[in-house]
Amino acid sequence: MVSEFDFIKNIKAKYGLRGIGDDCAVLPKNADSDSVITADLLVEDVDFRLDWTSPELLGSRVLAVSLSDIAAMGAESIWAMLSLAVTDSVWNSDFLEKFYEGWFTLARRHNVELVGGDVSRTAGKIVFDSIVGGDVPRGKAVLRSGAQIGDSIFVTGPLGGAAGGLMMLESGIKYGTADPARQALITKQLRPVPRIEIGRQLREAGLANSMIDLSDGLSSDLRHICNASHVGARLYANDIPICPVLTKIGVANDQALSLALNGGEDFELLFTSKDAGISLPGQPDIYRIGEITANEGVIEVIGGEFEVLQPGGYRHF
Amino acid sequence: MVSEFDFIKNIKAKYGLRGIGDDCAVLPKNADSDSVITADLLVEDVDFRLDWTSPELLGSRVLAVSLSDIAAMGAESIWAMLSLAVTDSVWNSDFLEKFYEGWFTLARRHNVELVGGDVSRTAGKIVFDSIVGGDVPRGKAVLRSGAQIGDSIFVTGPLGGAAGGLMMLESGIKYGTADPARQALITKQLRPVPRIEIGRQLREAGLANSMIDLSDGLSSDLRHICNASHVGARLYANDIPICPVLTKIGVANDQALSLALNGGEDFELLFTSKDAGISLPGQPDIYRIGEITANEGVIEVIGGEFEVLQPGGYRHF
Repeated sequence: MVSEFDFIKNIKAKYGLRGIGDDCAVLPKNADSDSVITADLLVEDVDFRLDWTSPELLGSRVLAVSLSDIAAMGAESIWAMLSLAVTDSVWNSDFLEKFYEGWFTLARRHNVELVGGDVSRTAGKIVFDSIVGGDVPRGKAVLRSGAQIGDSIFVTGPLGGAAGGLMMLESGIKYGTADPARQALITKQLRPVPRIEIGRQLREAGLANSMIDLSDGLSSDLRHICNASHVGARLYANDIPICPVLTKIGVANDQALSLALNGGEDFELLFTSKDAGISLPGQPDIYRIGEITANEGVIEVIGGEFEVLQPGGYRHF
Repeated sequence: MVSEFDFIKNIKAKYGLRGIGDDCAVLPKNADSDSVITADLLVEDVDFRLDWTSPELLGSRVLAVSLSDIAAMGAESIWAMLSLAVTDSVWNSDFLEKFYEGWFTLARRHNVELVGGDVSRTAGKIVFDSIVGGDVPRGKAVLRSGAQIGDSIFVTGPLGGAAGGLMMLESGIKYGTADPARQALITKQLRPVPRIEIGRQLREAGLANSMIDLSDGLSSDLRHICNASHVGARLYANDIPICPVLTKIGVANDQALSLALNGGEDFELLFTSKDAGISLPGQPDIYRIGEITANEGVIEVIGGEFEVLQPGGYRHF
């Protein structure tokens, strides 16, 4: 069975699509700006489960995953469209009212205006398609393809928390649990925070040669950067920041590292920079985790239990 | 049960969304142009049936419905995104390969570049979300809200054919039938032709005060124009062009009129103009069917069997 990555690669090659392959499409807008646009399709029981989340959390998450793509370009969000197909029973409940409350709460925080979309019924699984557009100064969008040999590799926060939250949900623990540590992990999974501000700061300061958001997982997303930039990477296992809550609840070190490497949906930014030390105002959580190498297509992990990393990330539940 | 129209109306009012309500969202682009963007969600067994169509026809139709929205603004299409969720059995067949062939054949005809989207699996009904963006000279997008009292009402082609095709499919006749008349109707339903060129001509000539594409049906879509423009309308039943194939296969006059009034998905353009007679190069099929009145919210039909028209259109199968 062909993977979704390979499917898109094949369509790209067959039809000569040069615009596809980054977190957002970049389109010329005017003398000052380019437009960036992203679409994210979220399908019930693939990308979310109704019994694990709430309508408000889901509304927030549907927008957050697209805002995260905007952040990964160093851009500012401006407008959104939202297409949705729901069952009759959802339609006839207050689900969508609450869903939109969650959506708009996050939208207001990032000055996103809802300008369109489509509403349909379905007899199948619920589906949301989230489309967000934004602006970035002309020619300044941070692409996956800009990593240079010798660049340092950074992430904007501790990793593995969202995957830990997914483990909790899979084990039957619910959002709202009285255990604050487990609730924190579940919240990381269900209500991701798009890193719009730090993405903009990095772009404004000219610090990021390449950038992507950690939706699939560090091992997969770093591979996307390496493939697009025709380079390799070396990671230092001891430098990868692990979500401290994982340790707190007794997750073993090697499992925590595996969640940080292969767990998706932390929605931190992964970027490369010619600078080896980066500090930005108000952003204490920037971690150097490795460097870009000339060893095209190979990701090494130093100090871990394995030496050459396979893309172990995943996109979906 | 609240209708989809009322649902969108409620969300618009609750969150003060001024940008929603036309065929496309209109966003400022540069000194010369505005951007127009539309999203259309097509759901299996609501908007299409796999046993009635082919992958190629479906690919073409998914793009055509969005291009039709671009046409209704008098705009030119530039880019598209396509999000889709399919079942494992579709994923593992050549369905999507053929689907994209249909999609790209139409895209090339209108210079549309695929710049993104998303691909997912689903255990439920197949879903496509079609997003298309385009350009229109600044301030020149033709809105639903511009109809003036005394304007003449026009359509760009005979109506009812697509609804007739749907009748054929519902009666068990298949695409590919040896009967050329029935095949023509079914083709009208399954492979709509977006009226991009005539929409652009009308906008360039400054002839259309308001415009919409006939996706829901004449009675519903004319009501959208009347509501947005705070006017009423009078239609002349004898002037409404009926798809001649309907007569040819023996559909009675009153049923044919009903299909033309209430059948959707002909994807002709409906527009209003201060001019009572319009001719455009290469466009023989422009029909004057009535006029805009001061009788806000009321659509009269002169010469039909009823005098005040209820919105009888439908969106879905």
